Amino acid sequence: MTTLKLYYAPGTCALAARIALIEANAPHEVVKLDFSKGEQRSPEYLAINPKGRVPALVTERGVLTETPALLAYIARRFPEARLAPLDDAYAFAHMQEFHGYLSSTVHVAHAHGRRAGRWADDEAAIASMQRKVAANMAECFGVIERHYLGDAPWVLGSDYSVADAYLFTIAGWLEGDGVDIAGFPKVQAHFKRMGERAAVRGALGS
Amino acid sequence: MTTLKLYYAPGTCALAARIALIEANAPHEVVKLDFSKGEQRSPEYLAINPKGRVPALVTERGVLTETPALLAYIARRFPEARLAPLDDAYAFAHMQEFHGYLSSTVHVAHAHGRRAGRWADDEAAIASMQRKVAANMAECFGVIERHYLGDAPWVLGSDYSVADAYLFTIAGWLEGDGVDIAGFPKVQAHFKRMGERAAVRGALGS
Repeated sequence: MTTLKLYYAPGTCALAARIALIEANAPHEVVKLDFSKGEQRSPEYLAINPKGRVPALVTERGVLTETPALLAYIARRFPEARLAPLDDAYAFAHMQEFHGYLSSTVHVAHAHGRRAGRWADDEAAIASMQRKVAANMAECFGVIERHYLGDAPWVLGSDYSVADAYLFTIAGWLEGDGVDIAGFPKVQAHFKRMGERAAVRGALGS
Repeated sequence: MTTLKLYYAPGTCALAARIALIEANAPHEVVKLDFSKGEQRSPEYLAINPKGRVPALVTERGVLTETPALLAYIARRFPEARLAPLDDAYAFAHMQEFHGYLSSTVHVAHAHGRRAGRWADDEAAIASMQRKVAANMAECFGVIERHYLGDAPWVLGSDYSVADAYLFTIAGWLEGDGVDIAGFPKVQAHFKRMGERAAVRGALGS
């Protein structure tokens, strides 16, 4: 089987795909980019992903980007790992809805901290955006706590899925964003549960 | 077959799902929300979608939100319409990558115009974000033009898909964002091609 190659940087959302690859027992290698050196903007990397971001997953058919696409692809390529409700169109769409909320609202709320310069050029505006990050992240995690998490151990219920890897990844940003995870008991219990998994320890360990 | 119900507002990304439902020949009804009256924030609607946004699709199993999730669900539920490469894991993931880029980067760039207040509270910061919308949208459409669109008529190549409905929807925002679509010839030709489809005319007509 082809070895997949994941372009990765610590602290980014690429952690979700890295956890998923380990959970899937997928033959893969991880290539780390050093964002402090701007390696995601090197000509070599832009030839792989013109958007200059991680994750990017190199397959035998081509390169895939965007975390929701990678997570669903990994789950589907390694069905024996049972990482998504592949055969249930509604349940699969619900998982995708959750991934969509994380990527287009929650990740975006977080990005207004370190990456506010994407959306305005002047320092005062950037500082203003940074001041609102904690409130926006708290609002997002309120939606996750009340609307998406139930009493079951995992995001989709009794079955673990790639959605858990994605939630864990973004919940890991709360502390740096000035939000106390303890305000969201279900999220906090999920975060602790995830931290005990071998795949998560493996992905964070190097 | 169950009638699906789409919560919709003109000028929003919900247009993509509406076009897809028509293309799929799906039994459905459209419920319009009046954003100028804040109907998306009414208690009745928040009970359907706690995020207070459109689209929301009511199915017999529950409510689905987030455009990429809806588009893939519609394509999968009505496979005879051939609106996505359902049986090809890589091609399906590529489609999802494109949807992910539109939802988490391009739509977000646009939202810093009218919805900048999500990310900062002071007027000066909001104005600063609004000034950068045109440049950011142009950068995004440069990526779409060079990286995603080829010489084939549709986003995924020779086969029309839900990705075309989504691109058309967001390309329709360029003019209001102060970007000349003529700067992106492939996008412009695609936009014109889409405007000739009966489903698109139907979705825009009411």
